[in-house]
Amino acid sequence: MGLDISPESLGSDKFDDLKNHTFKVIDSTKDYAVAYKPNFAFFERWGAKGFSWLEETVEYIGNDHIKIADAKRGDIGNTSKQYAYSVFEHFGFDCVTINPYMGSDSVEPFLEKKEKGVFLLAKTSNASAVTLQNLKEDGISIYERVAQMAKNLNHNNNIGLVVGATAPKDLKIIRSISPGMPILIPGIGAQGGDLNTCMKIGNNDGISLINISRSISFAGDLSSKSIKEASSIFLAQMREAVK
Amino acid sequence: MGLDISPESLGSDKFDDLKNHTFKVIDSTKDYAVAYKPNFAFFERWGAKGFSWLEETVEYIGNDHIKIADAKRGDIGNTSKQYAYSVFEHFGFDCVTINPYMGSDSVEPFLEKKEKGVFLLAKTSNASAVTLQNLKEDGISIYERVAQMAKNLNHNNNIGLVVGATAPKDLKIIRSISPGMPILIPGIGAQGGDLNTCMKIGNNDGISLINISRSISFAGDLSSKSIKEASSIFLAQMREAVK
Repeated sequence: MGLDISPESLGSDKFDDLKNHTFKVIDSTKDYAVAYKPNFAFFERWGAKGFSWLEETVEYIGNDHIKIADAKRGDIGNTSKQYAYSVFEHFGFDCVTINPYMGSDSVEPFLEKKEKGVFLLAKTSNASAVTLQNLKEDGISIYERVAQMAKNLNHNNNIGLVVGATAPKDLKIIRSISPGMPILIPGIGAQGGDLNTCMKIGNNDGISLINISRSISFAGDLSSKSIKEASSIFLAQMREAVK
Repeated sequence: MGLDISPESLGSDKFDDLKNHTFKVIDSTKDYAVAYKPNFAFFERWGAKGFSWLEETVEYIGNDHIKIADAKRGDIGNTSKQYAYSVFEHFGFDCVTINPYMGSDSVEPFLEKKEKGVFLLAKTSNASAVTLQNLKEDGISIYERVAQMAKNLNHNNNIGLVVGATAPKDLKIIRSISPGMPILIPGIGAQGGDLNTCMKIGNNDGISLINISRSISFAGDLSSKSIKEASSIFLAQMREAVK
């Protein structure tokens, strides 16, 4: 369950309304979701008070669900260490999304504790993803090299990949070169990815986490009832896909 | 002037000591530096109170220096919009460092206001930078394609590139394909980059900003006198290089 609570989607820029809606979404989805993935951008927009809201959100989620920091961080090793401390120790997340552009030494500080995990961006769900990610040297694309990087860094068995639902062909290639590796799949719902295909490919020879954000958290009239209904429909579709 | 104030470097994990040292560094360097570049990781380590410290730091810097958010952000357009609001509107930075891995639509929201600027990571200063950034399709490296992406996105004349001082050959190539474009050069000092060469290449046909962090902010006995002395020495070296 992605938590991307923006004033534009909620139709209110009152900070308390955003916070209350976040808690409503968590209450309404906890019986359907296996994990929560707050996207840091929507909290950072508000600066220090946004980070307080994120701290409260992590606490509100509690320990019955996997907590994924959708932060897309990555910096030189000395700096990545600080980010790792932030997401794992300070905020208390279980996993974090990491951008691979700076290479393996920018990712390693996030992998030191075997009980904490990384999802490395391989193929993202946006239209411009192809610009760099699908370039090839010697017939091997950048996103395939990221999948290979993930395998090389997987000493603690705590690394996975992000692959957008909008690129099922690339997902198939990544699944085939990374058997058993968890894949986080955003891009379902508002972004138009194909849920059925992704469930089938992603859960073949490994587990995939399908992320849905806006289509659930801003479903219908934004009531708890609408959010539960949307969750229930998506869950039924997922179960049907892998029956 | 990079602001990467960590407990490890300061020798104190008292939050107030870190804040006071930040202000001391700003006071001691303001006559030497043209810009300040706080690295978000060092603030985020502390969560909400770290972001309060960042808010105070931006205010303390004031309006006589360029304020660069070293955030290395980048996400799908809808999310990048929130990050752009965070760094430019909420925190009040003039520029931000952006990771290009997700392609042009992840960068565009940061370029909408012509008085706000982006430094796109082309070639970073860490050892693993080569893993993806130096891969080539049709003889053109990924970092060269990023430089080309920057040119294509430069409608508002508000985009620059990040090139590590540890890669002077790549800096030369990037300068030649991006004449006139500002280049932000980290990696001098603790990371061992070559100041003299970078000043010469980077300031040929355009302006470069040389970033120095730890070698100044933690110089000598960490006193204002030591920080000023270190600043003065680096500044003299820079002036000598382009005489």
